[in-house]
Amino acid sequence: MSEAVRFIDGGSVTTPRGFTAGAVYAGVKTYAQDKLDVGILLSDAPTVTAGVFTLNRVKSKSVVLTQERVETGRVRAVVAVSGIANAVVEAGMRDAVETTALAARQAGLEPEEVAICTTGLIGVELPMGLVRAGVARVELSPHGGDDFARSIMTTDRGPKSAAARVEAGGASVTIGGCVKGAGMIHPQMATMLGFLTTDAAVEPGFLKQALAHAVDDTFNMVTVDGDGSTNDTVLLLANGQAGNPPLSADSPGAAVFAAGLHAVADHLCKQLVRDAEGSERIFSVTVEGARSREDARAVARAVAGSSLVKSAIHGSDPNWGRVLAAAGRAGAEIVEEKVTFYINDVCIMDEGLPISFHKDAVVAMMRQPEVTLSLNLGLGEASATAWGCELSEEYVTFNSAYTT
Amino acid sequence: MSEAVRFIDGGSVTTPRGFTAGAVYAGVKTYAQDKLDVGILLSDAPTVTAGVFTLNRVKSKSVVLTQERVETGRVRAVVAVSGIANAVVEAGMRDAVETTALAARQAGLEPEEVAICTTGLIGVELPMGLVRAGVARVELSPHGGDDFARSIMTTDRGPKSAAARVEAGGASVTIGGCVKGAGMIHPQMATMLGFLTTDAAVEPGFLKQALAHAVDDTFNMVTVDGDGSTNDTVLLLANGQAGNPPLSADSPGAAVFAAGLHAVADHLCKQLVRDAEGSERIFSVTVEGARSREDARAVARAVAGSSLVKSAIHGSDPNWGRVLAAAGRAGAEIVEEKVTFYINDVCIMDEGLPISFHKDAVVAMMRQPEVTLSLNLGLGEASATAWGCELSEEYVTFNSAYTT
Repeated sequence: MSEAVRFIDGGSVTTPRGFTAGAVYAGVKTYAQDKLDVGILLSDAPTVTAGVFTLNRVKSKSVVLTQERVETGRVRAVVAVSGIANAVVEAGMRDAVETTALAARQAGLEPEEVAICTTGLIGVELPMGLVRAGVARVELSPHGGDDFARSIMTTDRGPKSAAARVEAGGASVTIGGCVKGAGMIHPQMATMLGFLTTDAAVEPGFLKQALAHAVDDTFNMVTVDGDGSTNDTVLLLANGQAGNPPLSADSPGAAVFAAGLHAVADHLCKQLVRDAEGSERIFSVTVEGARSREDARAVARAVAGSSLVKSAIHGSDPNWGRVLAAAGRAGAEIVEEKVTFYINDVCIMDEGLPISFHKDAVVAMMRQPEVTLSLNLGLGEASATAWGCELSEEYVTFNSAYTT
Repeated sequence: MSEAVRFIDGGSVTTPRGFTAGAVYAGVKTYAQDKLDVGILLSDAPTVTAGVFTLNRVKSKSVVLTQERVETGRVRAVVAVSGIANAVVEAGMRDAVETTALAARQAGLEPEEVAICTTGLIGVELPMGLVRAGVARVELSPHGGDDFARSIMTTDRGPKSAAARVEAGGASVTIGGCVKGAGMIHPQMATMLGFLTTDAAVEPGFLKQALAHAVDDTFNMVTVDGDGSTNDTVLLLANGQAGNPPLSADSPGAAVFAAGLHAVADHLCKQLVRDAEGSERIFSVTVEGARSREDARAVARAVAGSSLVKSAIHGSDPNWGRVLAAAGRAGAEIVEEKVTFYINDVCIMDEGLPISFHKDAVVAMMRQPEVTLSLNLGLGEASATAWGCELSEEYVTFNSAYTT
């Protein structure tokens, strides 16, 4: 199925037909002067829109407003502000409402058609004077996708965009997206934002389901702290400009559309992991043979999120004991004697017992920019994959030299 | 009640009557030469013994054996080996059994009377030749408590011991203890071991209950990764040499004994937090007004364990937004508009709204070696306290300067 997904060089949120975007530097992001910090993304035509939101009990009012508006089914544009989270401030809802109204005027829409995402400092009010002046200067263009991706950055090293094309329902359908920051990677930047666009026509129920599945396998498998931020949001806007008959779960094109969505989200999330401050090496954790999908996900996330494992990856240290210990605390069913573990293609542990391996060869292998850890729990048929990045900071110097 | 607890200068596990201990350097701890690494702790008289063990699904065979033996009610000695965890090795149970047999011979006991605790590298077999020679050289003495505390260290900067006295059941009762490492503090040393001794006579049921309560409020509130290690163990041995009538839950002396046990465990755990590598500053998180004790504990632990909060403590940054965001993801009931938050005695947020405070004064206050964060959730009567240490490594340099 994934052979049918063709990535587009330089693709972004404005690669699908009918989307425009633009951004300005408004002065909100005081710690990174002259960087774009207010952006608007717009679909020329009405869209079907789905969203996935933070589970934190303390939510930015931007999230609260956007959740409400996505529910109404009318959202077809997003205004994004970076530098300030608009969380835990008395004026949160008032400023969120006004910012969407300003963006609506700029885009020629009703306020109810505009969602808002904010990211940055908590407990600081949006500087509405700057926001008003900024939003009024945003110019929308079909080439604005990269600027929009830049405008959502906080401590990200660079913008992260992607787009891909699939043939679905007899039409050529394009899916685009951009993403910023992740809690697990930048502890100072607890917020992860993702924006996905498509020119496919999609029924609302199926769009919601396809987004939830894609997020579960991608965003939720890299952002170990993904439920942690006050502002985490992923939005997906589908404007139907590709001309296909609207896709539902049982349409012939449903699977290929879902595969395309998954591929774009996966591509964005790998960029997210790679962008970790000071990190040059990423790793995947694939868990197979789990009793349930929940078990597989829990183990993969526990291993990928373990400071011990991330330190071992940094030190190119085949310290599988740490992998086992992390897996054991995931709360999933594990029988030590049944676990088989590989680093890349080398079997390190076979049904609970360490295998004698050529340590220098494995260390050399682990020096590559991408490392694969594979666990087979030997208990069932369920599987999952999570992504992590090395911990390369000084405080792990001792740690990474612990066994080598 | 706590006025009745008198700490004893230089107290240790051998301060209570009838306990002896000793340790040698056997050569197990190859990364720290000439440091004690095999220790024995013994009660001359039979004891009532209780234990709390790791919840990890992957357990050291030392833990498995010790759990079995504590259940039989006969354990009155412990052999400890540091440097190797005896986890995820084929010979794990065989070596654990042999090591306890060696220690039993050295102490003049039956093997079934000896528990074993190991800590260090996972997946490496105990060097039994060295262990045999080492155990045979251990000399037990009433002054051996400090050596025993040193023999359980791995990356700990120093030994951590304490003892206190209470009047319970008409007798003067002494409680001693020592502790090593914690996952949250030393990510390379996921194991936390605690040994508590008392000369009180205590009924088995009440001893178990008193230990569980003390551990819940102390060890479990500093070791955020406490359920994470393959080897975490806390043991409490009560040998009745104080001559009091055996304490049960409704004895007149029960509460003061529990308070003494709690005080010693608390003292040891604060040493544990203070010992964090590179950390000079510790902080407490007190949560009041929670709907339930579980909620209070979850919020306190989430805040104390947050990398964001720990970084803010390092930077003396009164970044209460991070505190709120961490509290929000604890899974506990929280209504942002009802939360009041203090740093030491300064109100930073009152029922959900930031208070204008003198930032320089609070920053100066946060430069003290101990900082207190207090949250009142405004929802109920339950409370809890957790402890954390600053994150002082280079990778938080940017992070700690994020708002100041």
